[in-house]
Amino acid sequence: MIKVAIYGGSGYTGQELLRLLLDHPGVEVVATTSRRYARTPVAEVYPQFLGLTDLTFTDASPETVAGLADLVFLALPHGVSMDMAPAFVGTGRKVIDLSADFRIRDAGVYGAWYGPHRAVETLQGTVYGLPEIHREEIRRASFVANPGCYPTSIILGLAPVLKSQWIDPASVIADSKSGVSGAGREPQIGSLFCEVDGAFKAYKVGNHRHTPEIEQELSLLAGRAMTISFTPHLLPVKRGILSTIYATITHKASLEEVTSLYQDYYREEPFVRICRAGQVPNLSSVVGSNFCDIGVTVDKRTGRLIVVSVIDNLIKGASGQAIQNMNLMSGLDEKTGLPVVALFP
Amino acid sequence: MIKVAIYGGSGYTGQELLRLLLDHPGVEVVATTSRRYARTPVAEVYPQFLGLTDLTFTDASPETVAGLADLVFLALPHGVSMDMAPAFVGTGRKVIDLSADFRIRDAGVYGAWYGPHRAVETLQGTVYGLPEIHREEIRRASFVANPGCYPTSIILGLAPVLKSQWIDPASVIADSKSGVSGAGREPQIGSLFCEVDGAFKAYKVGNHRHTPEIEQELSLLAGRAMTISFTPHLLPVKRGILSTIYATITHKASLEEVTSLYQDYYREEPFVRICRAGQVPNLSSVVGSNFCDIGVTVDKRTGRLIVVSVIDNLIKGASGQAIQNMNLMSGLDEKTGLPVVALFP
Amino acid sequence: MIKVAIYGGSGYTGQELLRLLLDHPGVEVVATTSRRYARTPVAEVYPQFLGLTDLTFTDASPETVAGLADLVFLALPHGVSMDMAPAFVGTGRKVIDLSADFRIRDAGVYGAWYGPHRAVETLQGTVYGLPEIHREEIRRASFVANPGCYPTSIILGLAPVLKSQWIDPASVIADSKSGVSGAGREPQIGSLFCEVDGAFKAYKVGNHRHTPEIEQELSLLAGRAMTISFTPHLLPVKRGILSTIYATITHKASLEEVTSLYQDYYREEPFVRICRAGQVPNLSSVVGSNFCDIGVTVDKRTGRLIVVSVIDNLIKGASGQAIQNMNLMSGLDEKTGLPVVALFP
Amino acid sequence: MIKVAIYGGSGYTGQELLRLLLDHPGVEVVATTSRRYARTPVAEVYPQFLGLTDLTFTDASPETVAGLADLVFLALPHGVSMDMAPAFVGTGRKVIDLSADFRIRDAGVYGAWYGPHRAVETLQGTVYGLPEIHREEIRRASFVANPGCYPTSIILGLAPVLKSQWIDPASVIADSKSGVSGAGREPQIGSLFCEVDGAFKAYKVGNHRHTPEIEQELSLLAGRAMTISFTPHLLPVKRGILSTIYATITHKASLEEVTSLYQDYYREEPFVRICRAGQVPNLSSVVGSNFCDIGVTVDKRTGRLIVVSVIDNLIKGASGQAIQNMNLMSGLDEKTGLPVVALFP
Repeated sequence: MIKVAIYGGSGYTGQELLRLLLDHPGVEVVATTSRRYARTPVAEVYPQFLGLTDLTFTDASPETVAGLADLVFLALPHGVSMDMAPAFVGTGRKVIDLSADFRIRDAGVYGAWYGPHRAVETLQGTVYGLPEIHREEIRRASFVANPGCYPTSIILGLAPVLKSQWIDPASVIADSKSGVSGAGREPQIGSLFCEVDGAFKAYKVGNHRHTPEIEQELSLLAGRAMTISFTPHLLPVKRGILSTIYATITHKASLEEVTSLYQDYYREEPFVRICRAGQVPNLSSVVGSNFCDIGVTVDKRTGRLIVVSVIDNLIKGASGQAIQNMNLMSGLDEKTGLPVVALFP
Repeated sequence: MIKVAIYGGSGYTGQELLRLLLDHPGVEVVATTSRRYARTPVAEVYPQFLGLTDLTFTDASPETVAGLADLVFLALPHGVSMDMAPAFVGTGRKVIDLSADFRIRDAGVYGAWYGPHRAVETLQGTVYGLPEIHREEIRRASFVANPGCYPTSIILGLAPVLKSQWIDPASVIADSKSGVSGAGREPQIGSLFCEVDGAFKAYKVGNHRHTPEIEQELSLLAGRAMTISFTPHLLPVKRGILSTIYATITHKASLEEVTSLYQDYYREEPFVRICRAGQVPNLSSVVGSNFCDIGVTVDKRTGRLIVVSVIDNLIKGASGQAIQNMNLMSGLDEKTGLPVVALFP
Repeated sequence: MIKVAIYGGSGYTGQELLRLLLDHPGVEVVATTSRRYARTPVAEVYPQFLGLTDLTFTDASPETVAGLADLVFLALPHGVSMDMAPAFVGTGRKVIDLSADFRIRDAGVYGAWYGPHRAVETLQGTVYGLPEIHREEIRRASFVANPGCYPTSIILGLAPVLKSQWIDPASVIADSKSGVSGAGREPQIGSLFCEVDGAFKAYKVGNHRHTPEIEQELSLLAGRAMTISFTPHLLPVKRGILSTIYATITHKASLEEVTSLYQDYYREEPFVRICRAGQVPNLSSVVGSNFCDIGVTVDKRTGRLIVVSVIDNLIKGASGQAIQNMNLMSGLDEKTGLPVVALFP
Repeated sequence: MIKVAIYGGSGYTGQELLRLLLDHPGVEVVATTSRRYARTPVAEVYPQFLGLTDLTFTDASPETVAGLADLVFLALPHGVSMDMAPAFVGTGRKVIDLSADFRIRDAGVYGAWYGPHRAVETLQGTVYGLPEIHREEIRRASFVANPGCYPTSIILGLAPVLKSQWIDPASVIADSKSGVSGAGREPQIGSLFCEVDGAFKAYKVGNHRHTPEIEQELSLLAGRAMTISFTPHLLPVKRGILSTIYATITHKASLEEVTSLYQDYYREEPFVRICRAGQVPNLSSVVGSNFCDIGVTVDKRTGRLIVVSVIDNLIKGASGQAIQNMNLMSGLDEKTGLPVVALFP
């Protein structure tokens, strides 16, 4: 049994980690921390855990937690994570960080979008934890930066055509829509039921902080620097991200050929599914699962490829992917403990 | 491996059975039928199953299906089930019927609420499949009538105080609220998103067909004939039932004593949880799980007991309970393959 | 033109007042206040007002505001209102208070449920502003305490049968369900989209502060002291309250007779509608309007009357009713400026 | 008083017309038809009209209805409308057609997307009813083809920059998201609450029938033939369309300059509002109103203009716009009877 701890466990990604880890046959959760809820049983904060765990939130130090666990998930806000992570690294524990702090290779780029990086040394030794792209490095890593939710949906949606150079890298537009859980559990007016239900809006148009993370990975795939348009929207659903991605096709190909390209690229992947030619995925087919479903369309009238990809932002976009990474880092079957059938309806 | 089939598998309870059975370690699903979708792959009708099953809906006869399976779930509308069930019984297969057709012991009472019963002989040999009340009979049964969703929430909510005779049986009022999946997948105006979202209504006030089923089981528990007020409402959520149940207290008892009575009554039950004294449960703590959560309040001003109980109508209220019954009928651990942590948020 | 001001205008009831008053032909809104948003244009806080008003929130004192207006709406939290109201009363301005502070006649009862009352003198001169019950007093009043949302739905739902003494006053149970806007715009975890959507719960079972207000008015109607069971629930909709009310019938009457009793009682009322015999109302028929729709059912099996009443909690349950009171206090046609057709779907 | 009739009045656009027309001071609704609900009072089909209208649906012929009314709204499905419209035209009545049948000038283009046009003669005399673009023709028209909902949001969103030739017409991508009422009230699985709530999907990617309508009007504005990418999505809300529109900027301009261009272009328009520079609109600011709100962003990193426009699909996208057209055709103030403040929350 791997002993794992969740550092910063009272938010939605923290409780989702706990939910999934309690069903995972190879791990034992030894601690979960929260300053706000220190000394409160988890089942009082989240009554769905009533009778299922005796864990109580603690405000233990990184050192104490590192002393209990083989592997630690950091589910902290960005900016906080980079101050905590080095303490865990120093103890030799494996770390999977769910914040944005260690996803961007270039500290200068990080600085331009997030502010100064205060743990550049730790940053050097981290691996970007998207298994479908970096599986072998993840297996060998001791510190994995778990990808953002929007980036996961967009990078997986474009990898096959970028790798094959079938599209113009300068033409990429990603129009993404996310459920409200992506905004976390902090009380704020913009996340209230009365503000979100029946509503819909774009936000941070042209300047969302996931942009450099997406561009970093797309550029690696394309083999050249890429700049994209990325527009996030707030969808009145609890979970899920759908990205509609547009790009100009440079390699003449039929719908069937593009579909085949995707199917071949992801043939061995346990958590990526390609829709039949001409089909596009529905968010509801992946909510509750670790899948990324992708559908492609070739618009002959305009010469554009349109890719639609969907994930559950709390699972494949956060906690599920973190467990997928944990499995890889620990030599377990990558699929262990991860849900595959969506909860529908 | 137990070979199971789903007869009438294209509705929401049918697909929920399939979802749960695919994760069940002790069964193999050998067939699922649907007249409407005959010869269509399940994963085309329900794309969340893409890559997870090769099953195709068939319109095979009961005899053909009985020839393939050890146990058959009937997920048919009431009225249809009673015409199909005898064919399965004749083959000696175990049957779990999710319709209302075999829940009411007295064919005359059935007739008064549903119309004439056409399979009275089969009715004689059936067991009402609420494990918390009839576990031993279920273990020995070969035909189980799976309880209705509303009845499950109300019977479990009242069993301890009826058994102990702490309330006046003539005073019971059950005000229940159900998610829309209870209405099934048939296209009808009343189930459209635009009619349900932002709306709320009572329906079939004083004459819902679950009334005699509830009264039958409550009467058994109370040891005397009971008549109750039962008002169902349509809640703008997909899954879940919450019942608020009122009764006049006849045995003077404090909140703590009533809470203890409930905790003791359900101490050994794997799927019933009692909230701490003074707490009432939220639907969101059970949606996606097989739990029934119950909270009790003693209103000293009025001398009434108020019980709130919640279930996922498609799991503990239908398909999960059916699998719980299958486990019991098959000598498996009752909890096998049943989800316990709710999907939240 | 009547000059009106809104004191405490940045919450949902405040903005709803503004929305309705901007369409009212007989008034001019001269000021709206908010400490949090002082000096911010209303249209920045609530962009639906873009181009429709030049008002800016101020933090002006009661004296300053009283100097500008003929009539003031107080849309403040309870406890705050009683500290502000006397200042307005002193200036001779008409006041309509939307808080709970002046609804309960008996300062001792107020104290038992809310804490000490600090404006008992002002309390003496107020009128409970439910026009269907107290119209003539409202016409002559200079200080009206606008009713609570739950009380409005329950009092209107029971008035005919209490007045006629057709039910047992000791048997009343009100099971009410409210949309989330009733909780206001304060950011709190319990009002977040992710906590409310797909969820449902009872809260403050047996001890909600609207109980004494409801009992005060029901007792007046019944001509004797009444104690009721009242259970509020949080409904995953933005607007609306539906109350399902149970009472034992003491006067033998058919469904048609009870329906006629209600129709006769409310025949002249512009904002109460009675459903045809056997019909119950849907929340969606009143959301966006000032109507209270009521449907009655006689359950012969149990001898109980079941009343279902629906209102828009922000309109008939708050701001619309306040304007109805303003119209009465100002000698205008009671219906002026009040919306009647629900926004559907 | 103008006498108006609604031909095909039982769908969502028909009932929305009725709702708005009942509040319109210059018209009297003399008839509304429905084959399905013939001889049923409107208030039974739509209980929100209880007590507000005595109208009963009829299945009267076009000739009969034309005999009663000065102006007829056709709220029929496409394909049906073109068979009915000529009968009304023959009587000399003014007609506003809400279907797609008369929006496309070129019968050949219509044929390619919808099938053969069977009323080409009538088509010659129709005007495309987008007042912001074709106001003077509408004033003189006797037959107006009311625009589609998606086209309204996209054409208004691009008109200023196309007219000024500030963008590359070949670069336009419109990613649109619509509420479910756009699919009408026909019962179908895809519109059920359980299929839509918590879900999100793109549909008809690259081949939605609104495409030629959008291109026709954009081409007129640009002064050259345009081909665009248009992707509709189904949003889990009842009302509203948000379009996110991308285009490459060819005329170097700052955010402030583009914002000014839009403000100038729409300065006299009663129903178009431009957000302050850097702001984008929320659907919730227009639902319940006849407004189109537009926000623009200049993405310097990619050289693209991003326009976000929102409307209520049933009001500015259908019935409200139809009444705006009626006002123009009848010499009334264009704003008469049209709601401007959104219902929020």
